[in-house]
Amino acid sequence: MKLDIISIGDELLIGQTLNTNVYWISKELNRIGFTIRQQITISDTEDAILSTLEESLSKSDVVLITGGLGPTNDDLTMPVLNKYFGGKLVKDEKVYQHIEQLVTSRGFEMNENNQKQAIVPDNCRVVHNAHGTAPGLWFEKDNKVIVAMPGVPYEMKAMVSDTIIPWLKEKYELPEIINQMVYTQGLPESILAEKIADWENNLPETIKLAYLPSPGRVKLRLSSVGVDRNELQDMINTEIEKLTQLIPQFIYSEKNEDLGTVIGELLKKQNATLATAESCTGGYIAHLITRVAGSSDYYKGSIISYANEIKINELSVDQEEIEQYGAVSQQVVEQMAKGVQQKMNTDYAIATSGIAGPTGGTDQKPVGTVWIAIATLNGVVSKKYLFGKQRDVNIERAAITALGMLRKEF
Amino acid sequence: MKLDIISIGDELLIGQTLNTNVYWISKELNRIGFTIRQQITISDTEDAILSTLEESLSKSDVVLITGGLGPTNDDLTMPVLNKYFGGKLVKDEKVYQHIEQLVTSRGFEMNENNQKQAIVPDNCRVVHNAHGTAPGLWFEKDNKVIVAMPGVPYEMKAMVSDTIIPWLKEKYELPEIINQMVYTQGLPESILAEKIADWENNLPETIKLAYLPSPGRVKLRLSSVGVDRNELQDMINTEIEKLTQLIPQFIYSEKNEDLGTVIGELLKKQNATLATAESCTGGYIAHLITRVAGSSDYYKGSIISYANEIKINELSVDQEEIEQYGAVSQQVVEQMAKGVQQKMNTDYAIATSGIAGPTGGTDQKPVGTVWIAIATLNGVVSKKYLFGKQRDVNIERAAITALGMLRKEF
Repeated sequence: MKLDIISIGDELLIGQTLNTNVYWISKELNRIGFTIRQQITISDTEDAILSTLEESLSKSDVVLITGGLGPTNDDLTMPVLNKYFGGKLVKDEKVYQHIEQLVTSRGFEMNENNQKQAIVPDNCRVVHNAHGTAPGLWFEKDNKVIVAMPGVPYEMKAMVSDTIIPWLKEKYELPEIINQMVYTQGLPESILAEKIADWENNLPETIKLAYLPSPGRVKLRLSSVGVDRNELQDMINTEIEKLTQLIPQFIYSEKNEDLGTVIGELLKKQNATLATAESCTGGYIAHLITRVAGSSDYYKGSIISYANEIKINELSVDQEEIEQYGAVSQQVVEQMAKGVQQKMNTDYAIATSGIAGPTGGTDQKPVGTVWIAIATLNGVVSKKYLFGKQRDVNIERAAITALGMLRKEF
Repeated sequence: MKLDIISIGDELLIGQTLNTNVYWISKELNRIGFTIRQQITISDTEDAILSTLEESLSKSDVVLITGGLGPTNDDLTMPVLNKYFGGKLVKDEKVYQHIEQLVTSRGFEMNENNQKQAIVPDNCRVVHNAHGTAPGLWFEKDNKVIVAMPGVPYEMKAMVSDTIIPWLKEKYELPEIINQMVYTQGLPESILAEKIADWENNLPETIKLAYLPSPGRVKLRLSSVGVDRNELQDMINTEIEKLTQLIPQFIYSEKNEDLGTVIGELLKKQNATLATAESCTGGYIAHLITRVAGSSDYYKGSIISYANEIKINELSVDQEEIEQYGAVSQQVVEQMAKGVQQKMNTDYAIATSGIAGPTGGTDQKPVGTVWIAIATLNGVVSKKYLFGKQRDVNIERAAITALGMLRKEF
């Protein structure tokens, strides 16, 4: 089964918005057995939409379209599709009520634009948009499926996961595709590849391996396509077991869980609590922990001490030691971890202090220098890292590395 | 002048790699006056490459191709292009020496694959690859240009900036293109569109308007193409002035700056300081502030009070009021803001308390209920919001909305 993805929007063509939608859709649809034939991004014009749609329909079974479904004048997808499929525009009562409920709950009144969004072609199935006002449109023609969705990522994602994938699975018989992830932390890609080279070279031919590096971690993907899902999964599990024996300390999840989730599970198992004291990571560790649902069960809070006076007053860091060793030092980061652990009365604590950049570096402590400390009930461990020059990447790597250090304490 | 970008590679089609190349190329080429007609991603097969290239050449003036230029057997771009343009493969001495120098400087010896990369079609111009071994290939046909480049981002970027853009500017006379952004916060897309409908309808025909919504904010883009850059900019500035008079309180940047940066500029101008007390946003506001370089000049820190005891002990929130009104209440969020403002001795403070979800909601306070307070030297303002059901989106909307509320205090 072949699938085309059409993204509509000038913001993509002028390089203003990074197209993360097509990346996400490709992954999700490939996972359930579709071969993505092509991804194409076009302008919001009738000509471009029609000619691309015709070309895609002539070569693929399913065409997913994102963008151009908003209520404003620059959004052409709906009228153009309606013209192409020859429907009549009618008011959909269910959509209208949903929009009304959304708009009024946000404290606004229904206006003309809102009302317009409840008008849909009468020859399509409406795809519910749980998180927004523009409904999705599912058309069928010659046993092919064309779906138009809004371009807002979280609206589109809910539609794909909750409705479009179930409907596609109902309509088509799809091959089994397994993409199993193994998340590693603590080894650069090149070293990891060297460590697991023998294992990689001995993988069965039906299993494909890919390395997906991001700041602080490398994800490995094992993929396999076939008919019998259990058989595929068994083969992959066997290989993952071998891999786990090879590098046990570097693997943190085999279930697509991020480090924040993994840390949460470990804490819950021990009925333990966590606090953080962040300087250079500036709240990003707290965010990685608290974006996990249920984190209030084990996470008490954080003191973000950007200013030295906060380190001294709130985290009981010794002023003299800051003066002697500097804020980015083993002495200070260990005191920060112990300080927040005591203050918030937790079992575990994480502290970071570093120079995220682009300025603030010195010869002794260049940009990218980061101290991380982990306090447990048994004491404090700390380590110095030297990351790179880019502020955003340094923040992310420091946060991920800190969570990785905490994981090793369990 | 129209331009197509063709990306070749299965890692893009299965959603394993995010296509940042096409985003970067589009921005750079749009900036110098090209209209990107389409971006297309295809598989590494002869059929796909040839049919896509022919289609692109029939509609655009320039076609840029990335990927599939490596030395291994699965890289087909070079042989397919050579076949299409009917050249002869010859060894390029300059390329050979460059590869040899690169390979030996890395401590390796030239192998067969390296030698193969110095063989290029005799009817193309070679584009120097300063950072890698695969040369770029520049073909011309019927006054159109086709360039093949490697997919490795930093190799491709250097080629585009150092060689391809200068050569394109030499060959074509390019129009001026301006894309000016206006960032708004505080109005949903549909309401914003209603408020500015008259202004939008009276825009000069040469200015195109687009709405780009994301959680908590809507970006407006005004684009114009022409010959005289100053004239275009003047016209756009005139329209932005009118817009600013229409909705002054909702516009936070006309210079592509995020809210964290805008808040930073406002604080620096006043030589003022900021602290935050976050509950439901869990550090995300602090992250938006501290990811801005230089934020340590005005940002002192945060108390993230996920647990009620932290609200009481660290932020001096009255325990009885928490019991009476609940942690998600006007009373508590205002005390949090005042508490952190006093404790960290700052001019401004932000506090959030809400139910991010998916659990924890009640009839009175459903998931998505968020209280936000802003403390200034003149007192405290606070407001209740009802966002949606998705935890990550609620966190983002609450954070953006809080920064928007703070902005209005300046």
